[in-house]
Amino acid sequence: MMRDLHWSPKEKRIARQAFEKALHKEFETAIETTKKMATQITDVDDLWKLEEYLTNCRKGITQKYDYRYAMLVYVCNRLIVEERISFEDLNGLKEGKLNYIRSPIHISS
Amino acid sequence: MMRDLHWSPKEKRIARQAFEKALHKEFETAIETTKKMATQITDVDDLWKLEEYLTNCRKGITQKYDYRYAMLVYVCNRLIVEERISFEDLNGLKEGKLNYIRSPIHISS
Repeated sequence: MMRDLHWSPKEKRIARQAFEKALHKEFETAIETTKKMATQITDVDDLWKLEEYLTNCRKGITQKYDYRYAMLVYVCNRLIVEERISFEDLNGLKEGKLNYIRSPIHISS
Repeated sequence: MMRDLHWSPKEKRIARQAFEKALHKEFETAIETTKKMATQITDVDDLWKLEEYLTNCRKGITQKYDYRYAMLVYVCNRLIVEERISFEDLNGLKEGKLNYIRSPIHISS
């Protein structure tokens, strides 16, 4: 099962680097968007739009970036789909994991 | 009882003007603070500080600006205490209401 995959120390390092790279980019985008939205605030509706953006942003990032090994294949899959990382970033992972990451993944509850 | 005070049309107009004036100032301050905080964002901690500020700001304003006539004496009292309006803004209200607004007020449940 995907949730029970073994991650070697080298694979953990590779996954962590890819994860951190994507997270860093996500933060950069959020900061840039926030600064832009703030300069464009002219009334209170704009103010609450920024609040809503930030709240959704924080929730989305917290939900997406789940660095438990049991979840890492799903996370990598999503980051690939969203083009936040590439397969080059995952170079060094075992083929079995890469196959899972390449495939559409459905998390069963 | 303060909650049962009668507000004449003229008093309602005066109270509404004072209320709107204070609310407008509150929004202006929030917009100014947000723009300043946004320019100072350098990392993700700053980003979530701005989110927290905006969330608290929205909740605080919603809670404070309660324009039900049953609550208006309490609201005016608070706006006076916070120096968001002055007694000049309330000029024209009947003396009984002004006395309530001048006094420390405790809302009984």
